[in-house]
Amino acid sequence: MARPADVRGLAERARRGEQLAVARLLSLVEDGAEAALREVAAALAAHSGRAHVVGVTGAPGVGKSTTTSAVVGALRARGRRVGVLAVDPSSPFSGGALLGDRVRMGEHATDEGVFIRSMATRGHLGGLAWSTPQALRVLDAAGCDVVLVETVGVGQSEIEVVGLADSTVVLLAPGMGDGVQAAKAGILEIADVFVVNKADRDGAGQTVRDLRQMLSFAERTGEDAWRPRVVRTVAARGEGVDDVVSALDAHREWLDRTGEGTRRRRARAEAEIRAIALEQLRNRIDDLRGTEAVPRLAERVLAGELDPYAAADELTTRLSAPGR
Amino acid sequence: MARPADVRGLAERARRGEQLAVARLLSLVEDGAEAALREVAAALAAHSGRAHVVGVTGAPGVGKSTTTSAVVGALRARGRRVGVLAVDPSSPFSGGALLGDRVRMGEHATDEGVFIRSMATRGHLGGLAWSTPQALRVLDAAGCDVVLVETVGVGQSEIEVVGLADSTVVLLAPGMGDGVQAAKAGILEIADVFVVNKADRDGAGQTVRDLRQMLSFAERTGEDAWRPRVVRTVAARGEGVDDVVSALDAHREWLDRTGEGTRRRRARAEAEIRAIALEQLRNRIDDLRGTEAVPRLAERVLAGELDPYAAADELTTRLSAPGR
Repeated sequence: MARPADVRGLAERARRGEQLAVARLLSLVEDGAEAALREVAAALAAHSGRAHVVGVTGAPGVGKSTTTSAVVGALRARGRRVGVLAVDPSSPFSGGALLGDRVRMGEHATDEGVFIRSMATRGHLGGLAWSTPQALRVLDAAGCDVVLVETVGVGQSEIEVVGLADSTVVLLAPGMGDGVQAAKAGILEIADVFVVNKADRDGAGQTVRDLRQMLSFAERTGEDAWRPRVVRTVAARGEGVDDVVSALDAHREWLDRTGEGTRRRRARAEAEIRAIALEQLRNRIDDLRGTEAVPRLAERVLAGELDPYAAADELTTRLSAPGR
Repeated sequence: MARPADVRGLAERARRGEQLAVARLLSLVEDGAEAALREVAAALAAHSGRAHVVGVTGAPGVGKSTTTSAVVGALRARGRRVGVLAVDPSSPFSGGALLGDRVRMGEHATDEGVFIRSMATRGHLGGLAWSTPQALRVLDAAGCDVVLVETVGVGQSEIEVVGLADSTVVLLAPGMGDGVQAAKAGILEIADVFVVNKADRDGAGQTVRDLRQMLSFAERTGEDAWRPRVVRTVAARGEGVDDVVSALDAHREWLDRTGEGTRRRRARAEAEIRAIALEQLRNRIDDLRGTEAVPRLAERVLAGELDPYAAADELTTRLSAPGR
């Protein structure tokens, strides 16, 4: 574990693009200790905000890792520095990291212009909420032009990650009933770019048509509104991948031109500040556990003397009291 | 929407077992408005804590609703009053309520000794966290001897609901790879009773053996430790359902005898008080949004002058300040 003094040194070296320093900062951040998160955030505050953060999401089996890897290649061919965060919320009911997927990223493993990290939580989804924004800061400060945040398609994590991204790519594949899924899941609202992968398979045309039709229903009004792009790819053969990059570039240009990019970043910063503040308050409540305050209140609730809302009022009053 | 004065009246009538009053209180609670939750909790505080709360969980397709319905029948045959809360966290990526499943409960719809409610959230899992405990209070105060809380097997909701239950039933079915799933998901630790449903199918014996073997590895030590029961059922034909009830009765007897029941209820009350207190603090932070405090801090974060942790410190200081 790096001592406090080391974080600033690591941050300096990470900013020069040293892979080892970046990796160590990412490990610190992934461990999720608040002190480390604080230090990393403080050391990098003045040096981030440049990278284009792209969320990549979609159901299992659509080819997320293959597509991400192919997009990395296309970005590298254009001379961009690229970060990849694969966020895998090892939910107790969803299963763990898909090691096989990670292996496919191997082709970029020796490229100095690519930083790859697979983030997992230790059973608690909340952990990623703290680690991921700081991990993005690390890759941003390390000079990445683009950071791809790939999420396993389980539950609500996509939506959390969408909140972190400037642009969001939703992957679909033909014949998975994705059209209906998409509408249901509200991903029409979150996707800036749709990628229909495995476009050489039967039904790809239908998936694209379904998607276009649903998009036409959900058309955003206003002259400057972004109209989500639909791109077909066969990521395993690299087909269509340049079009994905072009669509992302167009979206970033739109973000810059309309001020929407700044608006999203501001909203994201607000959400992050509030989340951290709330976590600090949560910790203060946990600290009160040691003081018998909560157990005593719980006894009164069990005895039927107090309802839990009234008990919570007593607790928050105590928190704000000067002599707690 | 019931006015404040009505809640106490409804609570009175619900305690006499009036179906309509119970239904209206459940609707109030399901709407999730804090004022209503507070009132219901206050009106029922002195009148709950008697029911045996049983969580029923398992992957989709194992026959949860059929089993729940059959268990309701077996409990009614023993003269018990029964509540059923079907908790369906319409997660954006998991799909909505399974209406077909609900319909099977129809046979109990005209029974005055059974209260059935299907709870859904409007896209936000957190909503159920507030509604479910108060809904349990309503059914408890209405004189239910047993309340079955059935959850759709998606993501982390099971674990939340387990926290609300005195006893937890985990359903499995043969040939679904459930053995491995069980071990992975940590359900060995949460289940007090395992039900292998569809036990007339191929592989049922194997599923039971797998389960017993895994349980033997995870054996809890101590003379008074509860050893999870494994029950085979064919719920659609009512087979084995009495054994489920007997296993649950045995578990409740164990909870009472060892003091574990009180310990669990105390822990549950503590968790509830802390969660409500935290929600109140969250609301106070949200209130600060209107004051420009958070946007101003966010601007400084975007400008690189402040990191989000330092910004959060400023926010919580302001919360505790007397003149906020």
